[in-house]
Amino acid sequence: MATTPITLSDCERHDNQDPLRDLRSTFHLPEGVIYLDGNSLGALPRSAAAVVAHAVQHEWGEGLIRSWNDAGWIDLPQRIGDKIATLIGASKGTVVATDTTSINLYKVLSAALAMTGQDTPQRKRVVSERSNFPTDLYIAQSVCRQHGCELQLVDAHELDAALTEEVAVLMLTHVNYRTGAMFDMQDVTRRAHAAGALVVWDLAHSAGAVPVTLEAAQADYAVGCGYKYLNGGPGAPAFVWVHPRHTDRFWQPLSGWFGHAAPFAFAPGYEPAKGIARYLCGTQPMLSMRALECGIDSVLAAGTGGNPTDALRRKSLALTDLFIALIEQRCEGHGLELVTPRDHVRRGSQVSLARSVGAFAIMQALITRGVIGDFRAGNPQAPAGNVDQMDILRFGFTPLYTGFADVWHAVEHLHAVMSTGEWTQARFNQKQAVT
Amino acid sequence: MATTPITLSDCERHDNQDPLRDLRSTFHLPEGVIYLDGNSLGALPRSAAAVVAHAVQHEWGEGLIRSWNDAGWIDLPQRIGDKIATLIGASKGTVVATDTTSINLYKVLSAALAMTGQDTPQRKRVVSERSNFPTDLYIAQSVCRQHGCELQLVDAHELDAALTEEVAVLMLTHVNYRTGAMFDMQDVTRRAHAAGALVVWDLAHSAGAVPVTLEAAQADYAVGCGYKYLNGGPGAPAFVWVHPRHTDRFWQPLSGWFGHAAPFAFAPGYEPAKGIARYLCGTQPMLSMRALECGIDSVLAAGTGGNPTDALRRKSLALTDLFIALIEQRCEGHGLELVTPRDHVRRGSQVSLARSVGAFAIMQALITRGVIGDFRAGNPQAPAGNVDQMDILRFGFTPLYTGFADVWHAVEHLHAVMSTGEWTQARFNQKQAVT
Repeated sequence: MATTPITLSDCERHDNQDPLRDLRSTFHLPEGVIYLDGNSLGALPRSAAAVVAHAVQHEWGEGLIRSWNDAGWIDLPQRIGDKIATLIGASKGTVVATDTTSINLYKVLSAALAMTGQDTPQRKRVVSERSNFPTDLYIAQSVCRQHGCELQLVDAHELDAALTEEVAVLMLTHVNYRTGAMFDMQDVTRRAHAAGALVVWDLAHSAGAVPVTLEAAQADYAVGCGYKYLNGGPGAPAFVWVHPRHTDRFWQPLSGWFGHAAPFAFAPGYEPAKGIARYLCGTQPMLSMRALECGIDSVLAAGTGGNPTDALRRKSLALTDLFIALIEQRCEGHGLELVTPRDHVRRGSQVSLARSVGAFAIMQALITRGVIGDFRAGNPQAPAGNVDQMDILRFGFTPLYTGFADVWHAVEHLHAVMSTGEWTQARFNQKQAVT
Repeated sequence: MATTPITLSDCERHDNQDPLRDLRSTFHLPEGVIYLDGNSLGALPRSAAAVVAHAVQHEWGEGLIRSWNDAGWIDLPQRIGDKIATLIGASKGTVVATDTTSINLYKVLSAALAMTGQDTPQRKRVVSERSNFPTDLYIAQSVCRQHGCELQLVDAHELDAALTEEVAVLMLTHVNYRTGAMFDMQDVTRRAHAAGALVVWDLAHSAGAVPVTLEAAQADYAVGCGYKYLNGGPGAPAFVWVHPRHTDRFWQPLSGWFGHAAPFAFAPGYEPAKGIARYLCGTQPMLSMRALECGIDSVLAAGTGGNPTDALRRKSLALTDLFIALIEQRCEGHGLELVTPRDHVRRGSQVSLARSVGAFAIMQALITRGVIGDFRAGNPQAPAGNVDQMDILRFGFTPLYTGFADVWHAVEHLHAVMSTGEWTQARFNQKQAVT
């Protein structure tokens, strides 16, 4: 189907008309870089520098121990949790920002299996997606071992068949970290519940990027990451949500003092707090917590006059549509295969391209040119022909600070890398480390 | 026994002769404050402001995802762990800085009970001190429940009798957070081993403050805190040590990707790393990690020409000796009872005073005067006459930034508060939160 080619002017016009365009200046972005890896580590909100400096010099340096109360450190996990709640379709008082995604997943899976172990002891299986993020699978293996359960990994299209009466928990990442494919949270949750299973959602690639409707979906448990689309800084604390109908029924085994009903009574016996506070454990890293709040505020800033997620989603889809269209316009014949769904309702805020050879070198050549995306190796043990087996170039699009002209230039660089064979000359840096 | 009264001049002379006196200027200390709560939250090393600002603006802001390798974020848990190792009598490669003390305790207790469950399945008991820090007891309760064990709490003098052939693990905090009493690590470890039990040490009030000899004692597991005497900042990451003879035998259940043998191979099955890396789990908060390293460097700075702990210990004992002597000289008859051991080998780096009534108000009055210590309420359920039942005024002495004249002035303020009855007028602030 012939279409009028997209031009740089078209992209610049989109930028001029973009209602979020002023937000870009609230971030620090390095000169000469087009950053398409905000799904690994979100960019720096300019506010964070001053806020963290104040936390170091005044709250810590001057306030010392008094800042636990005077600067409100003690309340930050809940206060930040309440802000995150607005981005994931959850109510105030149902989310805390704390620990890491892996540890929070351990908490909720443990609570979920304790609950199903009591309510439906015949259900002894956790189902997940084969291409789920590995640390989720590692944690699930461990929790399954502790509860005498087994972990069953399937492809997305096999989920319905896997939801038998033996399944206690369906554990999924809402947006797949490799492909960018997004599950329909409401539909999948409904089907899992119809099969008698609980659902645990990992929102690592969703929170701050795509609409999330945990309560409307009647989901059971969720965890997520602070340092990707929430822009919370390197290794920012993660978050955990539990549906209020479950929260007080079971406690999680990381029963530290911050999850105690009366943490400062120093009673020798553990009594879990009411509500989501029982998912807290130890003392949280306050400097990183301060930066996390700046990151979340940078997302909430997109919501003047409405839910920030709506505006972000509109632009995200426009950016990824544009990227896909430009790849087709400029990079045809170079063996790049789109693996992210074209269907809007199934697409996260990233676009992934598979290539049978050279994907790592191509990404290195792009990075050398200042276009930062990332590379995800295929799993050689995955079934033949399965997307899990393929090496992937991954491009994340953060609508807060990515413009349409950025997309144009990124594709022009990719075109140059491919058409000149530049990538075959690329000097390889060490593989990027953290998704 | 009559002694010549100590004078302010004596204290000032001690300060002048103090080989560590120049280190005080490497910390930021608020005007008009005598800070005797470094065992709750260590003071700010001046270096941390610039290091954290650089981490925010350059490593995060400019380097973005590249900083995982280029700025060495990925290696920080091990690199900082190696520095901590030098302060606790451990070898390089046996310590990682990560997560929280509570979570690290969960890891090591789980590994220890998995090990004893296999080697000595008849041992079904964890023994700890009744007045151990509550979060340690909460975690132990949880791990015991998972392993079908029971937690037995005893007073320190009952430990020997409690070490029966049913005990799998003895879990102790090396320096008691309330009383400042210190266990003899080598002797207690030897006795526990003779009884066939493993020993887990919590070094929260030891690391950076008193000599710790984990390997010489042949201890089994240890955890500790980054934000007290290590000056790592509010909620700084904690640390964990495992004796190399145990490390590779069992893994801990928080099996996240950073503990995997090949974390970036993204293999679907968990395979624990060799060595202490298997005690890592999720992505760590790098801004707080940077501050932690500054804190540890601030302790290592006391070691020019030797082990920093030796110099710190000499001054710590001199400071606490002076405080005790001045309390006796100036505050006799005011109902303050010394509960910290006079015996040097049994004393940590704090002095605690019990008072049957008014301890909270007295501490509030002191804080109003700029002398910051803290208050620890007694446990009304503790056995009658037991020190656990008593309200306590707690004063921590960090030799890096506390001088002998500070001790003099602190006691003068306490004398004034007691002798004028000022404490009965004290306006009460909210209770301090974090030990």
